[in-house]
Amino acid sequence: VGKADFGDGHRKHTGRRAGPTVSSRTIVEAARAQFSRYGYEGTTTRTIAEDAGVDSALIHHFFLTKEGLFEAVVGDALDPPDLVDQVLAGPRAGLGERTLLAFLSHWDEPENRDRMLAVVRSITALDRAASALRVFLSDGVLFPLTSALGAPNPRERAAMVGAHLVGLMTMRYVYAAPPLATLSREDLATLMGPVIQARLVGSH
Amino acid sequence: VGKADFGDGHRKHTGRRAGPTVSSRTIVEAARAQFSRYGYEGTTTRTIAEDAGVDSALIHHFFLTKEGLFEAVVGDALDPPDLVDQVLAGPRAGLGERTLLAFLSHWDEPENRDRMLAVVRSITALDRAASALRVFLSDGVLFPLTSALGAPNPRERAAMVGAHLVGLMTMRYVYAAPPLATLSREDLATLMGPVIQARLVGSH
Repeated sequence: VGKADFGDGHRKHTGRRAGPTVSSRTIVEAARAQFSRYGYEGTTTRTIAEDAGVDSALIHHFFLTKEGLFEAVVGDALDPPDLVDQVLAGPRAGLGERTLLAFLSHWDEPENRDRMLAVVRSITALDRAASALRVFLSDGVLFPLTSALGAPNPRERAAMVGAHLVGLMTMRYVYAAPPLATLSREDLATLMGPVIQARLVGSH
Repeated sequence: VGKADFGDGHRKHTGRRAGPTVSSRTIVEAARAQFSRYGYEGTTTRTIAEDAGVDSALIHHFFLTKEGLFEAVVGDALDPPDLVDQVLAGPRAGLGERTLLAFLSHWDEPENRDRMLAVVRSITALDRAASALRVFLSDGVLFPLTSALGAPNPRERAAMVGAHLVGLMTMRYVYAAPPLATLSREDLATLMGPVIQARLVGSH
């Protein structure tokens, strides 16, 4: 996903022997829990080290910096391989609903949920998190999608859909505000599908 | 706006003599600049005191806590008296555009801009900021509006419009992502107006 990619940091230390690898995974798990709850700015390597039961020097040994550890936590959560294909496969009339279901399903994967939340809770503190999410929403998924669909002004359409999805994700996952936090994925797709559909291919 | 109101903190210290009042205003201005840029979690009373050129004990004297100071900064930015009336005044066909213009104009007021940004940048760190923004969006403005308009399911309509506005505000003001950050208020109102209109009174 280009320069805002968070997908490399955690691959730097593969090939190590078993001991450090286990500690490294423990650190990443403790970090994921804290970053997803408190965001980048609200988390310290000291409290992560405490939770992981390791010396904080070990965090710096593995990940160099707090930002390196953040990258290891986020990993490839912002680089889903087949979101665009999922949306494109199927009848054109269901594009809006499939877009919503693809995003909501991605968020709801247990493996992704906390990592996505870590990014969203950190966008105000960490420029790379904001930039990575922006790239994910536009160049990574939505602009390829609107380009493939062939309606005019694909860049603007992608931005409009992106704003809608960011609002939905924020209300549902960060503020946890009902009814958007309590509706099922399917109900949300039914409710918001027509609007997303109109943004993707309608004459808006 | 009920228990999430941030509008009282800064009124506690009126009636003081000139010296402390001036310092208090200087502190609030330094705090507004930092909270709007770094959010609640990324700001310390120490750095605010440095910027304001005062001893940080003075901050605690005036505002008791960092949260007290945050409340003084936000003030009544989340309590605009006439947003609903502005939207209701005028032909029904323009409801969507007027809603967008009312929100964007509120944000673009020099007096409000940094205070709104302070709230949005702090929602992931400070429960009261999240709760205040939720109340502003639903009970404060959007639910009264959808209730007054009389279409079915006003609570759900308010939530949908709220998600849309949060997404727009985040992309425009926090991520500053083009094209949503660069389009004029009027162009945004034209582009998004029909969707908001449909949410407010359409058969969605």
